[in-house]
Amino acid sequence: MANAYQYAKDNQDRFLDEYIHLLKIPTVSTQSQHADDVAEAANWLKEMMLDIGMDKAEVILMPEGRCPLVLGEWYGAGNDAKTLIIYCHYDVQPAILEDGWDTEPFEPTIKDGQLFCRGAVDSKLHVIANLKAIESWLVQDEKPNVNLKIVLEGEEESGSENIIAFLKAHPERLSADYALLCDGTILVPDLPSLTFGLRGITALEVHVKAAATDLHSGHWGGTIHNPLQALSEILTKLHDESGKIMVPGFYDDVIELTDKERELLAKIEPNMTDAWNDVAKAPQQYGEPGYNLSERIGARPTLEINGLLGGYTDEGMKTVLPEKAMAKISCRLAYNQDPDKIAQQIRDYIHEIAPPTVSVEVKLLQDGARAVRWDLESPAMQAGHAAYIHAWGNEPVYELVGATIPVLSEFTKVVDHVVKMGYGLKSGRAHGPNENIYLENFFNGIQASIKFIDQLGE
Amino acid sequence: MANAYQYAKDNQDRFLDEYIHLLKIPTVSTQSQHADDVAEAANWLKEMMLDIGMDKAEVILMPEGRCPLVLGEWYGAGNDAKTLIIYCHYDVQPAILEDGWDTEPFEPTIKDGQLFCRGAVDSKLHVIANLKAIESWLVQDEKPNVNLKIVLEGEEESGSENIIAFLKAHPERLSADYALLCDGTILVPDLPSLTFGLRGITALEVHVKAAATDLHSGHWGGTIHNPLQALSEILTKLHDESGKIMVPGFYDDVIELTDKERELLAKIEPNMTDAWNDVAKAPQQYGEPGYNLSERIGARPTLEINGLLGGYTDEGMKTVLPEKAMAKISCRLAYNQDPDKIAQQIRDYIHEIAPPTVSVEVKLLQDGARAVRWDLESPAMQAGHAAYIHAWGNEPVYELVGATIPVLSEFTKVVDHVVKMGYGLKSGRAHGPNENIYLENFFNGIQASIKFIDQLGE
Repeated sequence: MANAYQYAKDNQDRFLDEYIHLLKIPTVSTQSQHADDVAEAANWLKEMMLDIGMDKAEVILMPEGRCPLVLGEWYGAGNDAKTLIIYCHYDVQPAILEDGWDTEPFEPTIKDGQLFCRGAVDSKLHVIANLKAIESWLVQDEKPNVNLKIVLEGEEESGSENIIAFLKAHPERLSADYALLCDGTILVPDLPSLTFGLRGITALEVHVKAAATDLHSGHWGGTIHNPLQALSEILTKLHDESGKIMVPGFYDDVIELTDKERELLAKIEPNMTDAWNDVAKAPQQYGEPGYNLSERIGARPTLEINGLLGGYTDEGMKTVLPEKAMAKISCRLAYNQDPDKIAQQIRDYIHEIAPPTVSVEVKLLQDGARAVRWDLESPAMQAGHAAYIHAWGNEPVYELVGATIPVLSEFTKVVDHVVKMGYGLKSGRAHGPNENIYLENFFNGIQASIKFIDQLGE
Repeated sequence: MANAYQYAKDNQDRFLDEYIHLLKIPTVSTQSQHADDVAEAANWLKEMMLDIGMDKAEVILMPEGRCPLVLGEWYGAGNDAKTLIIYCHYDVQPAILEDGWDTEPFEPTIKDGQLFCRGAVDSKLHVIANLKAIESWLVQDEKPNVNLKIVLEGEEESGSENIIAFLKAHPERLSADYALLCDGTILVPDLPSLTFGLRGITALEVHVKAAATDLHSGHWGGTIHNPLQALSEILTKLHDESGKIMVPGFYDDVIELTDKERELLAKIEPNMTDAWNDVAKAPQQYGEPGYNLSERIGARPTLEINGLLGGYTDEGMKTVLPEKAMAKISCRLAYNQDPDKIAQQIRDYIHEIAPPTVSVEVKLLQDGARAVRWDLESPAMQAGHAAYIHAWGNEPVYELVGATIPVLSEFTKVVDHVVKMGYGLKSGRAHGPNENIYLENFFNGIQASIKFIDQLGE
């Protein structure tokens, strides 16, 4: 066994200190008042990359001074060796004590083996675990058999616009044979999980207008098609009673799960059901007939209303006949659905079903992203499997994640084999107050990343 | 002809000065910083009542120091004579220059025979016109043959809660044989209109909830009945495609218009259509089949969505699966519908159609009000008819108003015959910027009120 594993164990305390140092920097990418904090963290991470023995490290400034990328590279495995790129992000969601934190959100607090801090699980855990795994390799005589890149994004929590643009403009800078996207969580403490796909997305806004202005519902009510009602009628026609999406052609390009994939998902169905019961607490489940919970979440497309607004919404009554109404909708896309095509189908259908008594506009909210699906037998997936067994002592399960990571669609164009692993827990309250990890997961994560690099070099 | 008419003509300039004095006091009843202004106006009006020869006048303080009533009484017609009560309100809607006024909203400005000021048409026009009509009678030797009460409300623009409570607690103070409710507008300059009824109202709030909290639409989308979608489905089922309300029993108690009433409404249909085209500017008309515009507005009940809110409604996209959604709905009620019964029918129906995947709560927003309908042949209606002919030189048309004046339902309990007249124009921008009247309407209004009193005493 390489010395890297033992080195990591011997240096746990220092690694923890460095993790805490990073946690204290409030790298909130959505708030411009934290731009200096983001820059400070980026420079500190670049210095760390050089300190741990990478050949070069660079803070790549983004347009308009936005949160920079930090890219480190090590080519010690030689020209003939394969290259692995590790992706993590070092920016975090906003947090203030008043949101319901028990401790200051940017003051890391350890209690009974748990560390509480904004960014603890999402995703500074992964930033430091991977840098420390690389350190554990590079400071030893026994070097990895793969070349290493690590790219740290500073804008994941506010749209990833710049890294996607960078990937399109400079694909060679982030290209590799393998990519480890290290972010997110595992289902339950003893059950590490490998992700073999994520859903895509497209998002639209629907505007319905009837009269030229807000009117008095007494003076004109009963003679104008209320736009809130018209919008409700339109939205209702987007699903049938069973929950199936009624947009013509919507399901045409969806590739059904293979038997093998359904088998893998069946293994996590009890955990998913527990999680649903724990988190959702809705009166009962709802969803597309013919699919279980894990399949609905991971492999089936959705059409969700994210926001609805019209008329008077403050306290009490105002008898207004509103001029207009608005809905925000987004679709999680299944593998092989094209975001632009789906957006167009929805737009066409809404215009088709809109009553002639109102005018309707459908706008694209932002660029869509395709779903991704990875080969279960790829070297990256197998290395992930081995890494989890080594660090957690258990066989990982396989999961399809229902969320979308837009940068992944771009990564798949410049990397042959991608695997997504996460070292936090679903219960770690990413984005919420009292975000936390178990310290054990931090140390396990370092071991897992060491093993992942080891395995890819076999 | 009584001297009152000539007296009013001789004193037009002073009457206008007094109107302007009242307009300058910003009697905004919804804003507590104007409480002193409202009190100042109330005292000034009380003094005017005494000055013009009423037997007594009183500022009636309301609970919690709210905008007081001002009540004046004159019993000079003797115990055997009938009594008329005139109702107006002296409070106004808020107004600031930034709303789009061309002149300071509380600085009366006269230009080309038009007077611009907040409250010009709604409703200080009516307050002064009626007080000056009373003055024109009482300072003459030839006194009216009816006893007179005039009650001025200071809270009409913020709910009329206290006058309704006062009417219930002290009906004898405001009881009379006849009531002239003087407020509102006529359709077009040469066409005075008498109102023979108004719609009632009931208002509800619908809350739909699925999950216990906002969720990530990627992690859980497709497994929970989105409450915005469920609410849309519920709202859609409240009307059929033609615009008919689908709540069982909703139309049961509605009394259809008589042939005579339909005939009267037919006369104003062209004006209503012009007004609709001018104001609504919707792609096309909508409404309950089998009724024309004036009938839909005046005589048919509605179920209108006044507000809709749920999820993320700011700029851009947020892929939230919202916890809850809310709709505010209100019904304009036709004659003979009971607000409480209708509210209960809607509540029952919504609970019946709500899917089991969500929880639903339906709350009453405030006390409802019944529609009112008045006898076309009543002495008050005939006096109104004569008054308009005298002042405008034209036969009035008859109109059913779609709006609701909750205090009217209470007034009908303590007064035998009610008539509603207005001296402003529909184009006078009540509640909007650049509210205005033509001075001619002010002087016509004084003459009309003198004639109204004259006619009731015949």
